Amino acid sequence: MIAEHLTGERRARGPKTAVVIGTGLIGTSIALALRGAGARVWLTDTDHGAAQLAVDLGAGELLRADPGLAEPADVAVLAMPPAMVATSLLAAQQKGLARCYTDVASVKELPLLGAAELGCDLATYVPGHPMSGRERSGPAAARADLFVGRPWVICPVSDTDPGCVDAVADLVSACQASLVRMSATEHDQCVALVSHVPHLVAAAVAARCADAGERALSLAGPGLRDVTRVAASDADLWTEILSANAGPVRDVLLAVAEQLGAAAQVLADISAGHEESAKLLTALLESGRDGVARIPGKQGGPAPDYAIVQVVIGDKPGELARLFAAAGTAGINIEDVRIEHSPGLPVGVAELSVRPQMAAQLSAALADGGWPVASPA
Amino acid sequence: MIAEHLTGERRARGPKTAVVIGTGLIGTSIALALRGAGARVWLTDTDHGAAQLAVDLGAGELLRADPGLAEPADVAVLAMPPAMVATSLLAAQQKGLARCYTDVASVKELPLLGAAELGCDLATYVPGHPMSGRERSGPAAARADLFVGRPWVICPVSDTDPGCVDAVADLVSACQASLVRMSATEHDQCVALVSHVPHLVAAAVAARCADAGERALSLAGPGLRDVTRVAASDADLWTEILSANAGPVRDVLLAVAEQLGAAAQVLADISAGHEESAKLLTALLESGRDGVARIPGKQGGPAPDYAIVQVVIGDKPGELARLFAAAGTAGINIEDVRIEHSPGLPVGVAELSVRPQMAAQLSAALADGGWPVASPA
Repeated sequence: MIAEHLTGERRARGPKTAVVIGTGLIGTSIALALRGAGARVWLTDTDHGAAQLAVDLGAGELLRADPGLAEPADVAVLAMPPAMVATSLLAAQQKGLARCYTDVASVKELPLLGAAELGCDLATYVPGHPMSGRERSGPAAARADLFVGRPWVICPVSDTDPGCVDAVADLVSACQASLVRMSATEHDQCVALVSHVPHLVAAAVAARCADAGERALSLAGPGLRDVTRVAASDADLWTEILSANAGPVRDVLLAVAEQLGAAAQVLADISAGHEESAKLLTALLESGRDGVARIPGKQGGPAPDYAIVQVVIGDKPGELARLFAAAGTAGINIEDVRIEHSPGLPVGVAELSVRPQMAAQLSAALADGGWPVASPA
Repeated sequence: MIAEHLTGERRARGPKTAVVIGTGLIGTSIALALRGAGARVWLTDTDHGAAQLAVDLGAGELLRADPGLAEPADVAVLAMPPAMVATSLLAAQQKGLARCYTDVASVKELPLLGAAELGCDLATYVPGHPMSGRERSGPAAARADLFVGRPWVICPVSDTDPGCVDAVADLVSACQASLVRMSATEHDQCVALVSHVPHLVAAAVAARCADAGERALSLAGPGLRDVTRVAASDADLWTEILSANAGPVRDVLLAVAEQLGAAAQVLADISAGHEESAKLLTALLESGRDGVARIPGKQGGPAPDYAIVQVVIGDKPGELARLFAAAGTAGINIEDVRIEHSPGLPVGVAELSVRPQMAAQLSAALADGGWPVASPA
């Protein structure tokens, strides 16, 4: 899969040399991706075992303090928790490890402010954040394809050297990620909403399960597993991330907590016989549905608002072709099709997405043609 | 897949005849499963189109008011929202549709109380709840294998005829689900925790996304999608489910809302410079981790508490065999193994689970044998 992307052009665009400081999940994954793109990579970590494991995985060679590098690398990546970035940046710049520097911390204002306070060279530092992760940590969980197709935010400031912005953009490109530029402030507000608050909420739901009865948990299904999955992540790292983004996280979290508190009050009202309060629950659930519909899916971008016409089809060759021909004869463009097919059944259901104003016409045309048609429940 | 399970014994055990009242996702899926187990199934729904689509899918034949059934079916399944169960049960019993009745509603006290109030025959009614579902609804989303391996709760009362408990247990068995008996009260408390509160919390997080900026949502990843996924479900049905279980849902929800409110206060304290408050966040996150670890996975049951030793292995035949032989020579039993393998790399990582007291010994033995060993970060 990776190999398909490794064109000569891509190899030429990425950094030729890189230092990765911190060989956890993200650092080692970046190193693997850069190696795959033809770069020479040096690795270092305060945990020597982690660095050695990354080397054993083929992510690069150990960076030795003596003699160090013959000349500065194209780029150095600081892959460590947010609070450590500024001091590590200062040390790396003092050693002259690289011509340009970036980090991967999950918040961006804190390392940027820290770097300014410590007197780091802000011209060569491009704050960054690849929006990729796993619940697992450490170099063993690293994957060269961790960033493929994912957003990777960079937050250059007015002092940032454009050459270093280009160098970090090349690194992002070598990792096959999608570059997004925004300010550190905007970044921190965005990730509070799409990452940090969902994490805390998942932890709060999961915490209810920590002392629940076995019989209750035995009824758990994919819904509970999905809602709580991210809460399996490292508690200390996440404490640091949340603390480093305390203001924006608090604002969103408070809104969620208040909405849940209000829902609890509505449920109390319903228990007390005020059943008309239920419409407030419906409003919350509908707002939730609207929100889910706006979250980009794996293919990216929300699904357009099509109407769906369902048709039962036989499990035999040519059936879909016949169906599309019938729709075409009726002059209706089918925007998307999805087949539902229950295992072991000789028939399936084709769900045809069409522009809403065409749905009735398509249903009528297909029914006239003898197709078993139904609208969704 | 289904066919493998259709042994003669299974065919003999399920009901021979069944009526399914309500051909939405669950009702049609039950009908498909019963048909697969050799039963004759009659279908009916207030939405004629839904019933006809279920028939077209092969889930059974239409139940006609005239002439009706020649004799009562073995079992009738009431597959409809909670508030409709009692009146539908009364009507079905008055027609003598079946010898035994069950329902599939997501709460159990409300239909049971409603049935008692309406004067239904409680001897032939076995309240039931298959713990299966999808975000999609309607017969087109039905699957014969929807219940395979999933819990299916039944809540018989002291009045329930044991013959009807057996008949419904046979139906559960024909659907290849796993029977769980508990009281209606216990059921409703359990599902508040593992299903209803997670649903509301997911909706509250998703609702924050309903009016969020495009740029923020463009950064969303699998974490947010997983946390919010269940909130895509039907808002009216879920209003009814939550309202029908208002007391137990409120109790759990209030605890979650209060914990999130407290976390928001901690974040405000941290913003104000009281960084020692962060330890309260760590406690919440650790409790969440503990909770996630207790939720049964797809294989069922939490993972035992093993230590993990990581070894880099080559991607060539016999490598794992050599590794296990080395562990065996050292007299250490490997309880579980998991291979991490990044695409395009010539090496992977074997994660060996061993009893905690054996981890150091295994690491030493493998390192002595020349294996690259590391402990997890």
